[in-house]
Amino acid sequence: MPSTNGHPDAELHPLATGPAHKIVEAHKGPAPHILYSGWFCPFVQRSWITLEEKQIDYQYIEINPYHKDPEFLKLNPRGLVPTLACPVSGGTRGEDGVERKPLIESNIVSEYLDGLQSDRPSLFSDHPYTRARQKIWIDFVGTRIIPAFHRLLQHTPDKPYSMDDAKLELRGHLKSWIAEASDEGDFWSGKVFSMTDVTLAPWAVRLWVYEHYKGVKDLIPAEGEGGEDEKVWSRWRRWIQAIQARESVKNTLSDQEHYLPIYQRYADDKAQSELAKATRSGRGVP
Amino acid sequence: MPSTNGHPDAELHPLATGPAHKIVEAHKGPAPHILYSGWFCPFVQRSWITLEEKQIDYQYIEINPYHKDPEFLKLNPRGLVPTLACPVSGGTRGEDGVERKPLIESNIVSEYLDGLQSDRPSLFSDHPYTRARQKIWIDFVGTRIIPAFHRLLQHTPDKPYSMDDAKLELRGHLKSWIAEASDEGDFWSGKVFSMTDVTLAPWAVRLWVYEHYKGVKDLIPAEGEGGEDEKVWSRWRRWIQAIQARESVKNTLSDQEHYLPIYQRYADDKAQSELAKATRSGRGVP
Repeated sequence: MPSTNGHPDAELHPLATGPAHKIVEAHKGPAPHILYSGWFCPFVQRSWITLEEKQIDYQYIEINPYHKDPEFLKLNPRGLVPTLACPVSGGTRGEDGVERKPLIESNIVSEYLDGLQSDRPSLFSDHPYTRARQKIWIDFVGTRIIPAFHRLLQHTPDKPYSMDDAKLELRGHLKSWIAEASDEGDFWSGKVFSMTDVTLAPWAVRLWVYEHYKGVKDLIPAEGEGGEDEKVWSRWRRWIQAIQARESVKNTLSDQEHYLPIYQRYADDKAQSELAKATRSGRGVP
Repeated sequence: MPSTNGHPDAELHPLATGPAHKIVEAHKGPAPHILYSGWFCPFVQRSWITLEEKQIDYQYIEINPYHKDPEFLKLNPRGLVPTLACPVSGGTRGEDGVERKPLIESNIVSEYLDGLQSDRPSLFSDHPYTRARQKIWIDFVGTRIIPAFHRLLQHTPDKPYSMDDAKLELRGHLKSWIAEASDEGDFWSGKVFSMTDVTLAPWAVRLWVYEHYKGVKDLIPAEGEGGEDEKVWSRWRRWIQAIQARESVKNTLSDQEHYLPIYQRYADDKAQSELAKATRSGRGVP
């Protein structure tokens, strides 16, 4: 455990566990693309889901954020995860002799991966207008849902807003998002799992944090308790069931117990990630 | 002038002037795509530049934000600009009988336009890694540069940060952005004008606001005064000259005098746009 340097976030489990451990083991060998990852990070999970969905050949390397791999820092001095090392000529030569350049920003990494040669279908619609609309609601996740997710998660009694306000804000954004989903299937775009699903899935499967840390049990109204919005919440329940059942989502999750100390620090508003700090200072996703 | 409703932002010039007036006149007639625009809005200008670069057939409709066109509100009840009305079956039928659906978010509108049939080249690289890298620095404009642009512009003496801090933050982000530009030409990607240029251009050509309203003359160090960063600022000066000379950028700008009352309200931190309000509450681009 990398706790010796005394960093407040240092006591995290060093490796993926549970289902994610299995696919980490299956991707230890060298491959053209390398995912530098933090097993617990929802932004990483977006790119990881995409790698699995598209069946891209990749090597998984876990990055300890407190003792970063020197090979990784040579490639990406800022050291953020996810970083995808891409085989591009003129890049940094790795120990395997392959030249690679880094990509960051989970949605951009995912879109890049989606464009690679693959037997699997694209995660974007091939209709220009539909694809643009998928991107609008991908953008909405980053500009609205994630900041609200963190304002509620990091709520403490000294904040200038109430926990109830934060809950209603997050609920409102989730409602706006799912209200735009197709009715012709369980996924956001209907029958086909798409990048819009990928983008929200990691946070959607972490909504348990509110009941666990904040005692908030009604962020998503229970069945029959949605009032005039019952139809839209019923659509949400269909969506989240489909997401929770998706192999690529399940397989990139670790055992819940190891998320607990990480999210405890967020719930206490003591986490030191860039996003935690941005939220604390009132800003959005950096 | 739509000032009768007493809204504090209502006293803006109702129509594009100068170079932009000419292309508005040239796009009054019906066309498959309709740009619902505000002539002064830098987000609109991104999509407008793209329409001009790609020579897409479009109709320009100026939206008065205080007396919104009912036809427009039928299409897009939220009424934000830019809105691009796209000919898509199943959409709202306009007076011309064409069914259209709305697109919002300037970068998404621009990417959609870039994908349409056109004799002009794409504004994105066709190399997957290079394209992804262009998108990283497009994203950087929205998450870093524009929030910093507004924190400096809307700085008032009662803010919890100093004007100097705000200036250094914006300068730092502009430096990071241009430091990643290619040296093989004047544009960000080198010889070819690309979407990364489109994304920052509207703010880059509005940097005069700092000297005008705040007395800040050295946001960008003058020639020879860049110290150890002289090389990167010299690259910036090459870039901004190329941008200021670009037809699509010049032709989508109005006479400066009509921007003055609009930006005065930002400089006084009294503007009521979504972005102005988000900045005031310490948040990023909504």
